[in-house]
Amino acid sequence: MEDFELDPALAGDSFFVANLGLCRLLLMNDSRFPWLILVPQRADMVEIHDLSPLDQTMLTFETVTVSENLKAMTGCHKVNVAALGNQVRQLHIHVIARQTDDAAWPNPVWGSGHAEPYDKAAAQDFIAKFTASFQERN
Amino acid sequence: MEDFELDPALAGDSFFVANLGLCRLLLMNDSRFPWLILVPQRADMVEIHDLSPLDQTMLTFETVTVSENLKAMTGCHKVNVAALGNQVRQLHIHVIARQTDDAAWPNPVWGSGHAEPYDKAAAQDFIAKFTASFQERN
Repeated sequence: MEDFELDPALAGDSFFVANLGLCRLLLMNDSRFPWLILVPQRADMVEIHDLSPLDQTMLTFETVTVSENLKAMTGCHKVNVAALGNQVRQLHIHVIARQTDDAAWPNPVWGSGHAEPYDKAAAQDFIAKFTASFQERN
Repeated sequence: MEDFELDPALAGDSFFVANLGLCRLLLMNDSRFPWLILVPQRADMVEIHDLSPLDQTMLTFETVTVSENLKAMTGCHKVNVAALGNQVRQLHIHVIARQTDDAAWPNPVWGSGHAEPYDKAAAQDFIAKFTASFQERN
């Protein structure tokens, strides 16, 4: 994990949730959607195919584990999983719980309206619930 | 692969490219973006975490291989990889080559303007080039 530094734009838009084996797990600061971000803690990664094959497998495992837990916790209709990186180049994977009555459905969340920041207690509450559920299931 | 049937909406919006080990590879019929779609050929899959761990690893391998090849072929600035499924529920993964001067940059491609269908020769040309490059590299 040497030389890895979280992109300041990602850091500024999110709360820290946990360090997984490979990824740093963040909560996006937009209370409209349960929205997590995984950032592989490797320097200079842009595309998933920049990671070593072992890291790619780790990333899949961590993404799937987070996705499954988020779906169980929220009872969401669909999980959106995406590595875009058009705005922030550092490799990061969005995992978003979508409901058919959420603010952007059925469109993607990016560019849809404006983020509604959490108040700090609500963010900490979400993180505590997610972490407890995650530890119980894994 | 028993019982797998490609969703008619995906079939209607795309051209067949190849059958990989797990996935059917399609070319989205929108000439504005080099845009491929991988569909795991398993019945009743909605989320990546619905796949078996082995299939998840296969999916990662095939997605990464397609992504790397698409980037080499197009010289794109960024690849967008996403499993959304808000409109078509059957599990499918978008792999899209993005350029900083394309029709939607830096926004996601979904919901951005209107698809511009290929003429048939242009689609066949893209598929032939992609397949030749893919076979050479893999």
